[in-house]
Amino acid sequence: MKIHNFSAGPAILPQVVLEEAAKAVENYENVGLSILEMSHRSKEIVAVMDEAQSLVKQLLNLGDDYSVLFLTGGASSQFFMVAMNLLNEGEKACYLDTGVWSTKAIKEVSNFGTVEVLASSKEDNFNYIPKDWTTPADAKYLHITSNNTIYGTQYQNFPTTESILVADMSSDIFSREFDASQFGLIYAGAQKNLGPAGTTLVIVRNDILGTVNRAIPTMLDYRTHIKKASAFNTPPVYPIYVCLLTLRWLQGQGGLKAVEAMNKKKAALLYDEIDRNPFFKGTAAVEDRSLMNVTFAADSPAHEAAFLAYCTANGVSGIKGHRSVGGFRASIYNAMPMESIEFLVNLMQNFKPE
Amino acid sequence: MKIHNFSAGPAILPQVVLEEAAKAVENYENVGLSILEMSHRSKEIVAVMDEAQSLVKQLLNLGDDYSVLFLTGGASSQFFMVAMNLLNEGEKACYLDTGVWSTKAIKEVSNFGTVEVLASSKEDNFNYIPKDWTTPADAKYLHITSNNTIYGTQYQNFPTTESILVADMSSDIFSREFDASQFGLIYAGAQKNLGPAGTTLVIVRNDILGTVNRAIPTMLDYRTHIKKASAFNTPPVYPIYVCLLTLRWLQGQGGLKAVEAMNKKKAALLYDEIDRNPFFKGTAAVEDRSLMNVTFAADSPAHEAAFLAYCTANGVSGIKGHRSVGGFRASIYNAMPMESIEFLVNLMQNFKPE
Repeated sequence: MKIHNFSAGPAILPQVVLEEAAKAVENYENVGLSILEMSHRSKEIVAVMDEAQSLVKQLLNLGDDYSVLFLTGGASSQFFMVAMNLLNEGEKACYLDTGVWSTKAIKEVSNFGTVEVLASSKEDNFNYIPKDWTTPADAKYLHITSNNTIYGTQYQNFPTTESILVADMSSDIFSREFDASQFGLIYAGAQKNLGPAGTTLVIVRNDILGTVNRAIPTMLDYRTHIKKASAFNTPPVYPIYVCLLTLRWLQGQGGLKAVEAMNKKKAALLYDEIDRNPFFKGTAAVEDRSLMNVTFAADSPAHEAAFLAYCTANGVSGIKGHRSVGGFRASIYNAMPMESIEFLVNLMQNFKPE
Repeated sequence: MKIHNFSAGPAILPQVVLEEAAKAVENYENVGLSILEMSHRSKEIVAVMDEAQSLVKQLLNLGDDYSVLFLTGGASSQFFMVAMNLLNEGEKACYLDTGVWSTKAIKEVSNFGTVEVLASSKEDNFNYIPKDWTTPADAKYLHITSNNTIYGTQYQNFPTTESILVADMSSDIFSREFDASQFGLIYAGAQKNLGPAGTTLVIVRNDILGTVNRAIPTMLDYRTHIKKASAFNTPPVYPIYVCLLTLRWLQGQGGLKAVEAMNKKKAALLYDEIDRNPFFKGTAAVEDRSLMNVTFAADSPAHEAAFLAYCTANGVSGIKGHRSVGGFRASIYNAMPMESIEFLVNLMQNFKPE
């Protein structure tokens, strides 16, 4: 039975990426070694690192004023690294609270400076993106979470601000066209739209660094990794290589414009069925609906259990909603093929509860 | 041509590990998904994490007073995390300086407390392990680097101390039998004897934690990861899986006693040839010679270049010495087969410079 993988992350990757990724473990480009046992200082792996960094810049139209890093520690480590590297004691960072990941990011700031939460949709279980707020003039940076996997919400437009704009894009990086140059710093755990778990992409405008006074441990200072092109210490070679394969695939699809068009088609197919089918209803505010994580509920707990069992029996995997929202979450990242969404929509249409 | 991979790290892994690792990327144990796209909360991946932690304890004979963590950030991140988690301001940590990695570890301590270097072999380019020193009574912990890849030195016996003993074992973990219960904390980047780059093993005795006053960012507090069995955030699933395969292989070899016996045989074969062959000489003090990294020099720069070319032409890879020592370094980790060492020894015996 074919498995349709709707997991929220680690998540589906393009089939061609997985095939090449397996080949490299056996024998990397016929050098006679597995990529798992090759030195990060070998010319082959240095080329992997260089190409991955360069493709990120190409896809996002970024120039030499930005650095691209492949670090580790997940977005969770960026929660404190952003504040540690950008915020002096006595300075203020502003956050928009759009879900559990924003909340976790906010929690890490007070060790380094002052944090102000400008708006939160917590009272409505984060089912929308707050729009009614202003950034105070003394904000050093403004932090957003561009897509909120658990609740299925996504910024349709990014805020304009005089402060440095920082985004956690873990779950929607490279899913749509946007002006990356409006951001001072973007970070993303790889394991949703980019690669396997084990590396974290950080894109940083160089001029925002070097303004804090504190002593920063070497490995936590972005400048350490910029100077050494993410190879100050041994980088997570294989996860980065798989990211490179995905970046090549993205470019082959026609870049972000083409990927966005496809993502809109895929999401529309699913949202249309949710809105049409009396057994289901969407859980996120319609105007903030995510193209990446489609959250919906059944019209009764019995129907929820029945549809989940029906999905499982038919090879639809990872579709159970997060416990804090319930219902269903279909994560339809870039690599999710249209046929898997059609398959799910068919199941919804054929669902005939007792 | 068969490549004999003497790389210092990322380094050779057992062939059977590489074969299973490639299979899992295609289709993990016939579940119909690649391991790269499987959720870390799935029962399959939770089982991988559990078994890896449990095998580490079994191989080292450790009980529930220890926790086993698979983190990220390399040994380089442990350099500051050890001090951040163990050392209060005003407390003193003692270090033995046996090479560039010790030196880097020492550099990170002063942000957190006082550091005292008890002894250093720097004056002799770290070609021996200092033995003549004592730990002061007020040392909170004593930090050693058990094996020094660049210089080819290794502690033959571990220090006895009243302080907490901490070791960076990145390059010789699981290579020999030892009493792990004498250590408060052991850390090791995976990419030498354990797996691919991308995860860092930390073994910590639980009772040494929780004694510092400072606020520690959530991701940098060992207790965060202990509470969540290394899955507080998305762990580097694939690197950990490959570690698990290596741990299973180690157990299949008969555990550390058997592995140590084999490592001694392999190293002896190579050191005997170095000592016998007039074209070569060892660079590390004989009594401190490493079983993992065998460093040696040629009797002239011309012969050095000639032998390196001879090695390359015959498929011997990664044998050039580190620039700070020169000459040659044959890294012969657990997974290095005897036949590759025999092959290298044959090249040395057949080496007839002009």
